[in-house]
Amino acid sequence: MTWPREGAAGGPAAGPATAVPVAGGAAVPGWSVGLDVGGTKTLGVLVAPDGASGPGLRLPTPRGPDAVAATAAEAVRRLTGDAGLVPADLAGVGIGLPGIVDHAAGRVEHAVNLGITGGVPLAADVSAALGGVPVVLENDLNVAALGAAHLLPGPGTDLAFLALGTGLAAGLVLDGRLRRGAGGAAGEIGHLVHVPGGRPCPCGQRGCLEQYASGGALAAAWPGPGDRPAPVALFEAAAAGDPSALAVRAGFADAVAAAVRLLLLTTDVAHVVIGGGVSELGDPLLAVVRAELDRSARDSAFLAAMQMAGRVSLAPRGVPVGAVGAALAGRKES
Amino acid sequence: MTWPREGAAGGPAAGPATAVPVAGGAAVPGWSVGLDVGGTKTLGVLVAPDGASGPGLRLPTPRGPDAVAATAAEAVRRLTGDAGLVPADLAGVGIGLPGIVDHAAGRVEHAVNLGITGGVPLAADVSAALGGVPVVLENDLNVAALGAAHLLPGPGTDLAFLALGTGLAAGLVLDGRLRRGAGGAAGEIGHLVHVPGGRPCPCGQRGCLEQYASGGALAAAWPGPGDRPAPVALFEAAAAGDPSALAVRAGFADAVAAAVRLLLLTTDVAHVVIGGGVSELGDPLLAVVRAELDRSARDSAFLAAMQMAGRVSLAPRGVPVGAVGAALAGRKES
Repeated sequence: MTWPREGAAGGPAAGPATAVPVAGGAAVPGWSVGLDVGGTKTLGVLVAPDGASGPGLRLPTPRGPDAVAATAAEAVRRLTGDAGLVPADLAGVGIGLPGIVDHAAGRVEHAVNLGITGGVPLAADVSAALGGVPVVLENDLNVAALGAAHLLPGPGTDLAFLALGTGLAAGLVLDGRLRRGAGGAAGEIGHLVHVPGGRPCPCGQRGCLEQYASGGALAAAWPGPGDRPAPVALFEAAAAGDPSALAVRAGFADAVAAAVRLLLLTTDVAHVVIGGGVSELGDPLLAVVRAELDRSARDSAFLAAMQMAGRVSLAPRGVPVGAVGAALAGRKES
Repeated sequence: MTWPREGAAGGPAAGPATAVPVAGGAAVPGWSVGLDVGGTKTLGVLVAPDGASGPGLRLPTPRGPDAVAATAAEAVRRLTGDAGLVPADLAGVGIGLPGIVDHAAGRVEHAVNLGITGGVPLAADVSAALGGVPVVLENDLNVAALGAAHLLPGPGTDLAFLALGTGLAAGLVLDGRLRRGAGGAAGEIGHLVHVPGGRPCPCGQRGCLEQYASGGALAAAWPGPGDRPAPVALFEAAAAGDPSALAVRAGFADAVAAAVRLLLLTTDVAHVVIGGGVSELGDPLLAVVRAELDRSARDSAFLAAMQMAGRVSLAPRGVPVGAVGAALAGRKES
């Protein structure tokens, strides 16, 4: 597989800067673009027929369905143009969004962070703007799980992508297949009760896991001054021995470990890949979660036999996992 | 499809007494026998190529690997003989067992209730006793889930079989495929913590869901005199207004509802089918579980949208669901 402009001097696509094997060659139908539309930024990537991904693109995400669709189409045009292609060369475009997505209908039912409510046919809108290229919509966690499954070393086609962002939820790839669930709600573990009668949750319940194991939970529990993200400030204070920070970090690790146990004892996925904004903490996060998993298994031969700590890892950094997964969804590998 | 001795006068297999459609005709390879080996009884059924199941067979389950294998082989010989067949006519035999089963190797790693420990090649043993018929082993909850998926009206190929027996666990059929999990532990939700710091569990943890949502939990909480099963005595006392019984029943319903929410928010299965010994309570059990699910959704638009209560049902009675599922596994429909 030759990248169209690979090596072309001076171009923005002078080479596959984040070349990543995302799939074997057999079932690959063509070029595709994947977009991971977040509340503040839209990440895009062009994936070649052999699964290598080109340099990523980053655009600010506007609000409202028309602007989101226009930005998506613009990202596709730029990514293809930079590689000497046109949108019509694509086998498909995949778009991951944070919200309720009707995959079959290509419709966004609800995506508060994007200013979309009430059934927007985004797939058709983006497709029309691109001259009819097939467009597939997915929930953002689903594309992250697809991307993680292809980026994980080894077979790695069985995993949960546990996103610790503002909220808490998971995407599931089981036995190599994306698990959306009967109502598209698979992986919504953030609203299982972690502390009976605990902190109120916007969902209407009390004590939801999301109130203890998310970036939002850390920001509420450690609202210190400064520009740094709450997780970073908290983990630094804990590393320095601050007793309050240690207590908050311990409660957080306990809740994240509970989420991991929940995923493992219900679906028994081979791997739990931790992603989302909080995962940028890196190894210190992984260390406290693994330690808590080991602690919970200390008195239980049953849990010990599940070897939970060794099955948890961090999402690869510097790779737009969700966008890569969206590109795979765009060429129907889901 | 004609049952070999259908209508034969006086024979023990005078007709398909529990004729049940278990599968469409397309992918059906031949006759098969399914066995559901429980701690006290072994239930068997012959399933015809068109998916109809013949009259069931019930034998006491002996203890120890050799006796279990001999009983399994005897059940197969009787079920085939009663229908005018011989074991060599079978496409396969499926056996569901309560324990840790290595499906791929055909080995029982551990089945305490059957007196089996330490890696017994039961599939090969039973196959040898039957002249080489292919034998498949599965966990008992897996075959129950397979059986329930085929017996449910409608497409119904997406469900959790939630077994309320001595313990608590689930079998999963997701998008029509049995979900065993990477280590065969999918559905082991009984050992997720329901009450932090709660009742001690033999698994080594405290507050496991199994200690609150199982027949064993009811027997411990309502150890009344008499020969009747604890669940029956408890529900009768509660129906009569006994305050202690009402409290125990409420705690039980709360825990079972938690198990249902857990399955729905993690896997989003279309249906949760409640089985196991406690399910013989019938509609009164279903009523309290549904009421508790509705109560938990009262203050949460998120949970209300999931329409949980309507997705819960009871396993069909008078049908050996596990044995039927084992027969399907025996002919490789899993």
